Amino acid sequence: MIRPAMERVAVADMGSNSWRLVVYGYEPGTPWWSMVDEIREAVRVGAGMGEERVLRPDRIDRALHTAAVFASFCRASGIDTVEAVATSAIRDAANADELLDAIRERTGLEPRVISGREEAGYGWLAIANSTTISDGFGLDIGGGSIQVMRLADRRLEEAESLPLGSVRVSEEFLPGEKAAAKAMRALRKRVERELDELGWWDGGGRLVGIGGTIRNLAVAAMRQRELPVPDSQGYELGRDALEDLIELLAARPASKRGDVSGIKPDRGDVILGGALVLAAALDRGGFDRIEVTDAGLREGVFFQRLLGERELFDDVRRESVENLAHRFNTDPEHVGRVAALSLQVFDGLARAGLHELGDPERELLWAGCVLHDIGTAIEYEDHHRHSQYLILNAGLPGFAPRELLLVGLIARYHRRGEPDASELGDLAEAGDGDRLRLLCAIIRLAEQFERSRDGAIRGVSVAARNGSITLAADADPERDPTVPIWAARQSADLLARVLDREVEIA
Amino acid sequence: MIRPAMERVAVADMGSNSWRLVVYGYEPGTPWWSMVDEIREAVRVGAGMGEERVLRPDRIDRALHTAAVFASFCRASGIDTVEAVATSAIRDAANADELLDAIRERTGLEPRVISGREEAGYGWLAIANSTTISDGFGLDIGGGSIQVMRLADRRLEEAESLPLGSVRVSEEFLPGEKAAAKAMRALRKRVERELDELGWWDGGGRLVGIGGTIRNLAVAAMRQRELPVPDSQGYELGRDALEDLIELLAARPASKRGDVSGIKPDRGDVILGGALVLAAALDRGGFDRIEVTDAGLREGVFFQRLLGERELFDDVRRESVENLAHRFNTDPEHVGRVAALSLQVFDGLARAGLHELGDPERELLWAGCVLHDIGTAIEYEDHHRHSQYLILNAGLPGFAPRELLLVGLIARYHRRGEPDASELGDLAEAGDGDRLRLLCAIIRLAEQFERSRDGAIRGVSVAARNGSITLAADADPERDPTVPIWAARQSADLLARVLDREVEIA
Repeated sequence: MIRPAMERVAVADMGSNSWRLVVYGYEPGTPWWSMVDEIREAVRVGAGMGEERVLRPDRIDRALHTAAVFASFCRASGIDTVEAVATSAIRDAANADELLDAIRERTGLEPRVISGREEAGYGWLAIANSTTISDGFGLDIGGGSIQVMRLADRRLEEAESLPLGSVRVSEEFLPGEKAAAKAMRALRKRVERELDELGWWDGGGRLVGIGGTIRNLAVAAMRQRELPVPDSQGYELGRDALEDLIELLAARPASKRGDVSGIKPDRGDVILGGALVLAAALDRGGFDRIEVTDAGLREGVFFQRLLGERELFDDVRRESVENLAHRFNTDPEHVGRVAALSLQVFDGLARAGLHELGDPERELLWAGCVLHDIGTAIEYEDHHRHSQYLILNAGLPGFAPRELLLVGLIARYHRRGEPDASELGDLAEAGDGDRLRLLCAIIRLAEQFERSRDGAIRGVSVAARNGSITLAADADPERDPTVPIWAARQSADLLARVLDREVEIA
Repeated sequence: MIRPAMERVAVADMGSNSWRLVVYGYEPGTPWWSMVDEIREAVRVGAGMGEERVLRPDRIDRALHTAAVFASFCRASGIDTVEAVATSAIRDAANADELLDAIRERTGLEPRVISGREEAGYGWLAIANSTTISDGFGLDIGGGSIQVMRLADRRLEEAESLPLGSVRVSEEFLPGEKAAAKAMRALRKRVERELDELGWWDGGGRLVGIGGTIRNLAVAAMRQRELPVPDSQGYELGRDALEDLIELLAARPASKRGDVSGIKPDRGDVILGGALVLAAALDRGGFDRIEVTDAGLREGVFFQRLLGERELFDDVRRESVENLAHRFNTDPEHVGRVAALSLQVFDGLARAGLHELGDPERELLWAGCVLHDIGTAIEYEDHHRHSQYLILNAGLPGFAPRELLLVGLIARYHRRGEPDASELGDLAEAGDGDRLRLLCAIIRLAEQFERSRDGAIRGVSVAARNGSITLAADADPERDPTVPIWAARQSADLLARVLDREVEIA
């Protein structure tokens, strides 16, 4: 793979519960990026602060230790730029300077304590750059505080930080092994009251959530449904599923809640508190569900650096697809032509009344085309399978899990095999089998029209009559169309079967 | 991924049965390479040549067509260097010039007709650079001819090309749908007689096979055993398994033999002929089995270009591992330190009498260490799983399938989970469960000793007494060892359980 120089920046997120150092690689002046390394420690710096808001000595030691690991790691890996941000617990601590001075002195890191508003601003950058939300709400549940946001036209309209993080509410309301119903009700009430005071947390609509608490709850719900996707990006956690989880967690002692599949063990004792905060936020805002994104504060800090004044990607889904294609060095001209030919066939068949699919399927087809060859980075012979593996595992922010699976399946079946939608499992919607077969039939033909990888076929038009379909190729007069025409004729059978018509290539 | 410029070279293999254009990427002046693209067509140029050895007009048309595809593909992809080699069918054809002139004139390709000896020479380069054979034999079964070789000290000692390719013998001995026992015996006899005349095809020992016929037969045998590896590289096809396949194939009409799982459909009508040639070669040479390599003529041509006068990789297994690590841009210093620390612990435990594993396991541990992080190219969170996927699917020439699986499992379990050898399936050998657990326990500790990725721990020594084990770290006085020591202490439990002793980190 041929690549220009990649730069690396590390973001150290010194949260109230966990601390993370995340290293991002990016190519300056381009939108290309990926996460390349990560260290996570459950520092729990905000534990046991009490009313006086004092960081405990054992927490300070642990935090210093972790900061030393982060700094040592960055020095050893030659990462010069480290953005360290400290949030709620340190922001509110009476003795924050004791820790901050020690970190500066002993590790060389320069943590920046950000305000609740700033924290919400980074949350907004993460949400708006990793989902397709335009108007709606955002919620970030941290260890010390939660950040609530209202978005309009992808911009941040309202933002507030409230001291209702999972560690904080758990210590105040659920200190023991058992969670009493009364304490749980009191916790919910407190959250509802604080949200009410904002005056704008209502009306329902779309809600996006960030932070480890929400991610863990979503993964726990996904595990119960045995969904065939590796992470929670884009998953919609419904209110009923959340209440079921709360019941399940509350029935166990705090020390056993980390054993629930999907919940990180070191988060077990505060997950119920976090779940109750989330439930109250859904109730109060009138939301049916919360859509999860894996991006968070760290990505917000990174996106600010990557995008600068631009702030937002123009089109999150497009950038996700193109970024992934770029990471695995696909030939952009070839895949662009396969995509263009696919969309022409898709549109032509629609005009001829041969299918009723619309823009959503058209976009999935486009994404599958752009990504169909990324698996060649692993090995050529089975590259269609590898493309699917890479799509599922590297992920596509902005796409829901079902959409991600469909894009993967389009890539999987772009050259061989009978398209099989059963991999969608519980996420399948009515008609997905037929939908997938048609999209695969189209990409398979388009790939063959571009068999010589030289744009010999500039376009394809569709005509249907007397129960047969003619795909007429517009050949570049300066190139030899023999190969693509011959190849396309060998690959028309899937389309013929899907539409139950004869298909002629002209 | 940051990469220097990669160059590409295409090799067009114009065989008697199938034609393949394979594109290799490589970094000039380095041993780094990968196959990046491939087009295959079952041209069957040698079909129906008869006694007069004349290429049939329909075959010439098909061949010209395919040459045009290859040339167009190379032009469109900007590949300037194309090495086109033609073998047996064209070599022996009375009217070869008719085809060759037309190819030169119409496509610009310049095919080079190589002699049987040259073909065997390329086969030797493929075998000696993709397996660990030092002394033994090689067999390449093509469509028109077979090449037989004898190797001594990795050099080519004897080489001959015989007109016994799968298409050729099938046409002569097995022309119809049914394979008569008498014809099959006659075919075997012919092969045995020709091999006898060589005077050196005997004595048994190690035999390596190349070419599509042998690969297809190996894959068919592997499918019957449901082996959990994606290709036949390094697989040992035994004589009994081959005879079983011959029986299975002979019981079907020629037109149905391509339906057998593992056999390419367009090879179905000549696979039985090829299988009989192979069986006779095993019988005559006194071989129990043949070891398969996926490399072949094309790789031989490519290796000549890559390696020049050097001709052979110094150490095939080492180059395979390092090449794969390089392709996915692993930090070579970090993985090198993890490997060195792992081997020190491995050796120390052996000296203390705590295990009886030897050089084979030591090498697998080394390979797993070098490759443990390649999955980060896909995604960080589950990179141990991705490393395993990449190892299995990109492959490691020189390693047998069981070894490949073990290397993948060491990478898989380098950071999480209980090592599980059941993935070895039918390839598991006695003790593989314990073997894997010990190797994973070692890499997991070594990874933590290198947690800060800066070489803070320069070495580890092992002492055992009174039922407990002490791993003493030698810390670099100029670096802070706190992090790695602390991290290693958190990861010693697997080793303690595997050895059933207390493990102390000092």
